[in-house]
Amino acid sequence: MSLPKALAFDIFGTVVDWHSSISRETRSFLSEYLPDLPPSDFALQWRELYQPAMRECVGTQRGFVSLDTLHHETLLKLLEAHRVDVSLIDPDILSALAHAWRRLDPWPDVVPGMNQLRQRFPLVTLSNANVELMVALNRYGGLQWDAILGAEFARTYKPDPVAYVSTAQALGLEPGQLCLVAGHHSDLAGARASGLMTAYIDRPMEYGGAPAPDQSFAQRWDWQADSLTDLASQLLN
Amino acid sequence: MSLPKALAFDIFGTVVDWHSSISRETRSFLSEYLPDLPPSDFALQWRELYQPAMRECVGTQRGFVSLDTLHHETLLKLLEAHRVDVSLIDPDILSALAHAWRRLDPWPDVVPGMNQLRQRFPLVTLSNANVELMVALNRYGGLQWDAILGAEFARTYKPDPVAYVSTAQALGLEPGQLCLVAGHHSDLAGARASGLMTAYIDRPMEYGGAPAPDQSFAQRWDWQADSLTDLASQLLN
Repeated sequence: MSLPKALAFDIFGTVVDWHSSISRETRSFLSEYLPDLPPSDFALQWRELYQPAMRECVGTQRGFVSLDTLHHETLLKLLEAHRVDVSLIDPDILSALAHAWRRLDPWPDVVPGMNQLRQRFPLVTLSNANVELMVALNRYGGLQWDAILGAEFARTYKPDPVAYVSTAQALGLEPGQLCLVAGHHSDLAGARASGLMTAYIDRPMEYGGAPAPDQSFAQRWDWQADSLTDLASQLLN
Repeated sequence: MSLPKALAFDIFGTVVDWHSSISRETRSFLSEYLPDLPPSDFALQWRELYQPAMRECVGTQRGFVSLDTLHHETLLKLLEAHRVDVSLIDPDILSALAHAWRRLDPWPDVVPGMNQLRQRFPLVTLSNANVELMVALNRYGGLQWDAILGAEFARTYKPDPVAYVSTAQALGLEPGQLCLVAGHHSDLAGARASGLMTAYIDRPMEYGGAPAPDQSFAQRWDWQADSLTDLASQLLN
């Protein structure tokens, strides 16, 4: 297997631990409005609304909507499903809560792994996050990229092939010269269908220990690693 | 004057010294093919072809073309104007020469100034350079940005207002909350016409000491500095 010319990273779950961070960020709000709902369950339910919300934006009249906006909409939807009357809550509190997705901790191997990989490869984001959210998340977690590409640059969401292919094009690469690094089989399947190389990072705690919902997409990927430092030693040695 | 929420940077001339770098990068080629032409003159002539080439891409059928491609086309045009038969030259040599624009030195104040400014502001590029060129240039010069925005993200070139306004939008800002940092009065005039704040960096050696071609656009800008470290002390104190 020849080496890729650049690495493109999925972010939520692969680079940052959204489950424990969203649990932490929502705990105080929930203790007031939904004291019987464990923050871990709330985090899982909120994340579950993300895929269908995004799908409504691909190839439909709605078009590209920033992930910040979708997080805000799915938050209201989830609270209403739990019979919370959101019209009684200060809109600033709800906006700050929707921005919890900007305060997500990187997994412990991420910064050292990226520092090693950066010596050899350009590292870019290939996430469904909008630029504003990514900039905030990078500053929060001390993450440094060569470019923020993916959804907003492509004006569409993964797994639309345009999102993968336009990232390679922006770097002057053929799809087969770019490798997606992701913790999700479904994302990697989309990348492979678009001609990209694939590197799977195992993140068994992404869903707080619960099984990942995309096991049916599992297959043999070009590289398989249990951390970014593990991937670095496979690619650099 | 209130402070901006983020700083967007012009690159060629403002951040990197294209004149002395292009002179250095073309010297060996010119000594073989145009020994009587000083590399400094060649650099100035090559740069002069950039504005008209770009204008041909704004609001015309040609649409957005990467700056790498325009540099290649203007190189051939310039060599032909000097009666060099480019069909006799190895295409790889010409491509490598067109990529001289990826090997430009930052001015000495740039890295320390950016390190200071980054503590307080997100720093993004708002250049006509395409992403691939910017990534190469950043790696060459050790420059670190929060995001690569500008022309390719906007799919149009400055001074098209879309290039300025879409950079603010991507950061979730109103145009008036974003400040363009540039060494060119014409660029700053475009930014001001689009509602951005403006910071002028004086770069008297940009054209090797020759006068800048855009003096007629000079006006009083929101900030005026003679280096990025000077701008940092004005904005941070």
